[in-house]
This record gives sequence, structure tokens and C-alpha cells, in this order.
Amino acid sequence: MSATSDGPAPDRHTAFRQLHHGERPLLLPNAWDHASAAALVRRGFPAIGTTSLGVAAAAGLPDATGAARDGTLALARGIARLPALVSVDIEGGFGERPEEVAAVAAELDRTGVVGVNIEDGRPDGTLAPLARQRAVIEAVKERVPRLFVNARTDTYWVAATGGGTPPSLAATAERIEAYVRAGADGIFVPALADEQNIGALADDLGEIPLNILFTPGRHTYERLAELGVRRISCGSLLFRAALDRAVELAWSIAHPDVRTDLDGAAGPRSYAAAQSLAEDFAEADPS
Amino acid sequence: MSATSDGPAPDRHTAFRQLHHGERPLLLPNAWDHASAAALVRRGFPAIGTTSLGVAAAAGLPDATGAARDGTLALARGIARLPALVSVDIEGGFGERPEEVAAVAAELDRTGVVGVNIEDGRPDGTLAPLARQRAVIEAVKERVPRLFVNARTDTYWVAATGGGTPPSLAATAERIEAYVRAGADGIFVPALADEQNIGALADDLGEIPLNILFTPGRHTYERLAELGVRRISCGSLLFRAALDRAVELAWSIAHPDVRTDLDGAAGPRSYAAAQSLAEDFAEADPS
Repeated sequence: MSATSDGPAPDRHTAFRQLHHGERPLLLPNAWDHASAAALVRRGFPAIGTTSLGVAAAAGLPDATGAARDGTLALARGIARLPALVSVDIEGGFGERPEEVAAVAAELDRTGVVGVNIEDGRPDGTLAPLARQRAVIEAVKERVPRLFVNARTDTYWVAATGGGTPPSLAATAERIEAYVRAGADGIFVPALADEQNIGALADDLGEIPLNILFTPGRHTYERLAELGVRRISCGSLLFRAALDRAVELAWSIAHPDVRTDLDGAAGPRSYAAAQSLAEDFAEADPS
Repeated sequence: MSATSDGPAPDRHTAFRQLHHGERPLLLPNAWDHASAAALVRRGFPAIGTTSLGVAAAAGLPDATGAARDGTLALARGIARLPALVSVDIEGGFGERPEEVAAVAAELDRTGVVGVNIEDGRPDGTLAPLARQRAVIEAVKERVPRLFVNARTDTYWVAATGGGTPPSLAATAERIEAYVRAGADGIFVPALADEQNIGALADDLGEIPLNILFTPGRHTYERLAELGVRRISCGSLLFRAALDRAVELAWSIAHPDVRTDLDGAAGPRSYAAAQSLAEDFAEADPS
């Protein structure tokens, strides 16, 4: 296999790593289609990610189920041509077995993508077994060493989205430690909000960058920087805000007296609300 | 062929026609992907269109060149399943010969779509010959009589986007008359802005609905209603505004002091600016 010898010059991978160790945290905006990716790059972001919710919803598919695998790979092929460093959200890895996930990673590497996000949360609201997730990360790093693997643990996310009780920080730390030993280049803990916990994790991780999901109103970029966070990503926020902007602008044309609340305290539609849009395409074909 | 005997019950086509003759003009918002379509329908719009710029740009392709043909048909198949009446922008028809365009229309009809937009503007900034465009409309109406054909004439559009001199209203009226005789169900004149001309055209058309492209700051829904406009569509406006919202929100996270100007006088990025995004994907693959 020549997965590590073809593709772009190695310095792009180094550049992506270095963005995690700059003076300020890496702000990674997440695109969902070619246009959003190109527009973000033109705005001046040196690196962009993708949002699996956005990619899936744009195609009328549910997030985190693997249904958007082909669309994600096609999008990656396109946006890897942009003058930016691209990291792709591959949900749980688009495959059950570690070698399947490694093959996806190798395919992305060949397109010029420099990083991936791999999550341990599953569509049914459970977490993948720790041993399976460790094996996945090991397989990806063995197959494509230069690819930046951002290992996401969903201990807080599944509790937040499933209504469960928040996990202990210790349970999260156990997963993080295993993923780092497996070769993860960065750690992502979406839905982690408590500042003390964020600071403690960042300290524990040392040189391994901690990635936090930006949530408007919950914390600021500056505060996360102070806590030692090295990467701040937007998840599906931009996608959701864009969708709301379009819908409310359309509504306001014929209903100028109805107050839209784009910047109000409510914020954009929730992850769950955006995720549920795919249900509208699940009906039987009318023809 | 059974193109007119299968598909949804005929009353959906009647319902779409009737929306052009209600107390207020039909406000048709234009979607570019499954999520925007579903979100617009959930907001309460009984009918939606598509924006060819948005569909193309989302896939990294240029508008109005036919490049987005397959993506447009795939999107139509998806969004026709929504509980709404769907009209699809098929640019110049996704084919040169009238029977090719009629085949596209028949395929859309089978998905449950109730209308199409067909434009006479060409990618090189010229207008299709009047005889060709008339033949296209005739072929579509012969093949799929129940499909609402919104015939778009780009006399003003090519002048506005190409920097040419505005056309005479008489030249536009000549095309409109030909398209109506060919069987067009509605007439769309994007970039037509002069109120006197809009009113005159609406009067001339009588029962044939006149469609105007909504442009923020240029006119209001209420004023267009007074002038006799029966359908007001958004073109790529929602797509462009959504894109800007995403980009400026992302930028504001790490640069809270930089004032974004989403609702300022400048409005969203222009059609040309959005169209140019596709150029960013035209480079050689980096691998």
C-alpha cells in the first residue's frame, strides 16, 4: 500500500498539528457542503472540519448512523481541493471492524484530507466498547500514521442527548487515556461544559490537544483558551444557524410583522430538531 | 408512456395552480438541499421551489450550465416526498433538444414534482433562440400537460448580470407572448425591477401568473401584490443569506470585536459571489 507515500506533501500534516499549538486555540468551523466549505476558506479560516449532522441532513439522512458514508467521502474529495487543511467527521468510522475504519481513513488520506474525527457514541445512545474503540484508533494510526485522529468520547454527549445522568469525569478520563495510548492525536469531548472539568482534562492531557464544542452562551472562546483548550469546533452550529436564517428570512418576506428571533436567547434550532428533519424523507414515495 | 397516469393524484397540481390565484401572491421559498426543503415546509410554506445556484454551489458546481443535472434530479426525488407542493428549477432544461427537456420533465413528474422553471438565459450570457425555447415549452407541455411550466425569460437577467444595457419591455413582451402561446402556465422575469413595467406586464398577462424575483430593499411583498404579481420567489437569496450567516457566526466566535453585517444595507453576498465559489473546486487535485 502506498497510502502514506502518495497524497500531498507531509508539511500540510505538520501545519495542521501546529495549529493546535499556536498562541490561540484553533477555531475549527464545520462545513456541510462544498459551498459552505469554500465560503469558510475564503473568509480566512486556515483549517475546516465537517459536521456529520449537516452532511447527513443536507442529504435527507439521519446523523451518526453511517447512512451518510458515501456523501461524506464525496464531499471530502471535493473540499480537499480547497486551499485549506481539512478534517472530516466520520461518525463512528463508517464500519464496524477496525480494518474497515482504517480503509475509510486511508481513502480520505488519499484525497488530501489531513484529519478525521472518530466518535465512540452509537446511534442507539450507547458507547462503543472501550476495547473496540481502542482497536479502531490503533488500526487507523497504523494504516495512516500522518492522519490527525481526533478521538471523540461521547460520555457527556450521550448523557446530554439521551437525557441520562452526567458521567463521572473519571469514566471519561479512562476512555481518554485509552485513546491516547492507542495513538489519538487529539481528544474531543462534546457536551462537556463544566469549566473545572474542562480545565482539569486540559491539564491532564498536557501536549495532547483538548477539543471542546463551542456552544453560544455557554462559554466564550477566550475563556476556553484560558482553560487550556487547544481546539474549539462548531459541530453542527453553523449548519443549524444557516438553516434558521434561510427559513426566517423567507417567512419574514410575506410576514414582515412577525418577529424572527435569530439572535435571541433561544439560539438556533437544536441538534435534535435538525436531526429530526431526516424523518420527513422516511415516508413512502407518493408515486 | 404512463407519465401522466401514474404519480400523485391530480388534485395536487390543481392546488399548486390555485396558489397562484389566492388573495395574496404565492411566496415561493427556494431550497437547495433536503434540510432546507424540510425546514421550509415545517415552517408552514405550502409550496417550495429550488434554486439552481444553491443546488449547484452546494455540490461545488457552477450554476446554469447543466452540470448540476443529476444532483437536481436526485434532490427532486427526495423533496417530492415532503408534504408540500414542489417546483424544480431545471435551468435551461438540462438538454439541448426539446425532447430531452421533455424527458427530464416527465422524470420529475413521476417523482411527484408539480412544476418546473425553464429559463432562456444561457451560460454564455446570451438568450436561447426564441423558436428553440418555444419548442421546448411545447414539448414539455405535450409530454406532461399537468406540470406547471413557469417560463423564465432572462432578457433583464442577462443584462443585469452581464453588464449589458437593459432590454426594452417590448423585447421581453415578445418572448412572453411566444411562451404563453407555447403553453407556459406562468411567466418569470428575474431582475425586472421597474414598478411601472412590472404592473404593465401583470396587466398584459391577465390570468397568467407573473412571477417576480424578490430582492430585499428593492421592493416589498405588499407592493408587488398591489402591482398584480401573483408569485414571488426567492431565487438564491435564502441560500446566500444562510451561507453568510454560517461564515459570519464562525468568524465572530474567535473575533467577537469584529462587527458582522448580516442585516446591514449590503445584504447577503451577491449571485456572482456565490456562483464564483465553484471556481475553488476547479483546481487540479492536490494528490
